[in-house]
Amino acid sequence: MSDVPATMRQLQSLVSPEGELRLSVATVHTPQPGEGLVLVRVDAAPMNPSDLGLLLAMADVSQAVGSGTAEEPIVTAPISEAVMGALSARVGKAMPVGNEGAGVVVAAGPSPEAEALLGRTVGFIGGATYGEYCLASPFMCLPLPDGATAVDGASSFVNPLTALGMVETMRSEGHTGLVHTAAASNLGQMLNRICLADGVPLVNIVRRPEQAEILRAQGAIHVVDSSSPTFEDDLVAALRETKATLAFDATGGGQLVSQILNAMEAAIVATDAPYSRYGSDVHKQVYVYGALDPRPLELRRRFGFAWGIGGWLLTPFLARAGGEVLGRLQKRVADELTTTFASNYTDQISLTQALDVATLQRYARQATGEKFLLVPQR
Amino acid sequence: MSDVPATMRQLQSLVSPEGELRLSVATVHTPQPGEGLVLVRVDAAPMNPSDLGLLLAMADVSQAVGSGTAEEPIVTAPISEAVMGALSARVGKAMPVGNEGAGVVVAAGPSPEAEALLGRTVGFIGGATYGEYCLASPFMCLPLPDGATAVDGASSFVNPLTALGMVETMRSEGHTGLVHTAAASNLGQMLNRICLADGVPLVNIVRRPEQAEILRAQGAIHVVDSSSPTFEDDLVAALRETKATLAFDATGGGQLVSQILNAMEAAIVATDAPYSRYGSDVHKQVYVYGALDPRPLELRRRFGFAWGIGGWLLTPFLARAGGEVLGRLQKRVADELTTTFASNYTDQISLTQALDVATLQRYARQATGEKFLLVPQR
Repeated sequence: MSDVPATMRQLQSLVSPEGELRLSVATVHTPQPGEGLVLVRVDAAPMNPSDLGLLLAMADVSQAVGSGTAEEPIVTAPISEAVMGALSARVGKAMPVGNEGAGVVVAAGPSPEAEALLGRTVGFIGGATYGEYCLASPFMCLPLPDGATAVDGASSFVNPLTALGMVETMRSEGHTGLVHTAAASNLGQMLNRICLADGVPLVNIVRRPEQAEILRAQGAIHVVDSSSPTFEDDLVAALRETKATLAFDATGGGQLVSQILNAMEAAIVATDAPYSRYGSDVHKQVYVYGALDPRPLELRRRFGFAWGIGGWLLTPFLARAGGEVLGRLQKRVADELTTTFASNYTDQISLTQALDVATLQRYARQATGEKFLLVPQR
Repeated sequence: MSDVPATMRQLQSLVSPEGELRLSVATVHTPQPGEGLVLVRVDAAPMNPSDLGLLLAMADVSQAVGSGTAEEPIVTAPISEAVMGALSARVGKAMPVGNEGAGVVVAAGPSPEAEALLGRTVGFIGGATYGEYCLASPFMCLPLPDGATAVDGASSFVNPLTALGMVETMRSEGHTGLVHTAAASNLGQMLNRICLADGVPLVNIVRRPEQAEILRAQGAIHVVDSSSPTFEDDLVAALRETKATLAFDATGGGQLVSQILNAMEAAIVATDAPYSRYGSDVHKQVYVYGALDPRPLELRRRFGFAWGIGGWLLTPFLARAGGEVLGRLQKRVADELTTTFASNYTDQISLTQALDVATLQRYARQATGEKFLLVPQR
């Protein structure tokens, strides 16, 4: 720990009882790794949608106001009353942010697994990666292959294992094809590369023509645009070809999940089939793993009774899958880190730049093709 | 077959391409039982919600018009354009109606199982029980115990096996308590009796105070009324006590499913628990087995990511459960036919009375406490 300073800077997100979001760069004690833990100097941390959800607390960032000093900036923004109800458990608590990142292991608590990582550059899951240093479990660290940088490995956990987890789930639940929404995201592009490599039929659903172009340029076979007037017919046609009966949905709101289930049913039922009020007996499943669409999720049920919708998260999936599967998936991520699992960042920003109002409003948009990387040491 | 007339009367439901429902009492050839089938003289058949869905095709029965003769009445009613879209597969086809019933086996095709039932009074699943005679598979016949009448056995399949199937599903999926909506229905009262007998904690959700009274008078412990201003709090309190994490929902529309999942989550998460954007890790499940509420099903997700919703139907459940379970459940139904599994009918009507417009408008309401029994031989 001799080289590690006693204090460090960390991004914190606080929701006040009055309904105000307050973001700050706080100076806190650098944590010391206890038994079985390592301390990572964070060199790069991606801003994923799940991180932005915690960071921004669904505040109205169009009304964000900056204050504080250049060294210790502060941003405040109002939170609507409707949203506050869902946030009661975090009111008044300054929360660190950042699920994953990459950097060098600079200290280790007493345990062989922790000590073995000293000096290695790792991708890792930490829960507080938007700071100069962060604790991690060795089992949540992926030592990067020789020559790979922290930027290469910053997104080596959440997106790669989520995309691989979708394909694993498809196989373990007996489906033979996939549907993915928000398919032009970094995660979506990764899933497309995996499915092309593995021969898994994939229907990519995007919201705009330019997103369809991004995926087609990367070899995607089935791309349907939900903004097209022929969307529902296009979706049925793609589902007839792929026979996909499992979808992963990042939106979690509006009618998209309902449209997918109805299109799956329409693709399954032959046009000359006898009428059944109960629908087909082919099970159609959608897993919701995000909340990009804040509207209520609305089901217009014309898809019979053989269907399911459920929440899906990476951590419980990995817990169910077990260590052997995790090891196999992580080996693939390491082997293909700069190809299949490469992430592209349009902007690299420091902790203080993250609290520049104009910059914040840009990454808060989560626009397709834009992806921000935090560089806490800058 | 010597005593069986060559023709018989049968209720039929037809949807015209122009969007008109046409109900009639048709005279058709009496079917002959082929190999492995029996012919049942239908003495009683209940009008369950699922039957009414097929019979009435979501037509506007307030505009129903009667015509035809006293012997062969006809009723027509308009169907809205929105509904017609979901009915395309049945347009132009005169469909028989009626999932279950009871009566005497009057003929059998060549097979030991079929012949063994000759002369027995059975409850059965037939798919066309709203007629004077109906074919059935011996495996879908339950010979009634001595002294039981066709009226006693008319509802010995759908409601008893559905209620028992809910408890079986609860056990097989690792839950320890149940929630049921539309809980004052015949099915709901049956489920309440089963849960009281078996010591299964049950939260009964009803829509009106008088329905709550019906259940409380039958010993129900947890009854919550969705029309009450304190409904959501009452539901959370009942879920805290029962620890129920599985619900069976008959409505399939509106916000009730969402309210149940949110209340389950609120009952699980301690008020002083640390904040998690991902919610609790306790799996919360709702199975939708009906469609009493025609509105879209709207989810307002404040229940984390450990949740599932799915369709649930009796027949696929029985197929998954297998013959041994079915045998065990049917034995219990026969043993407790006039106690646990008794159904109450407020009205017994003939086939032609079913096409009396005023009568039709009454059973179409599906009012709590009102249940109609068809008596095709009358």
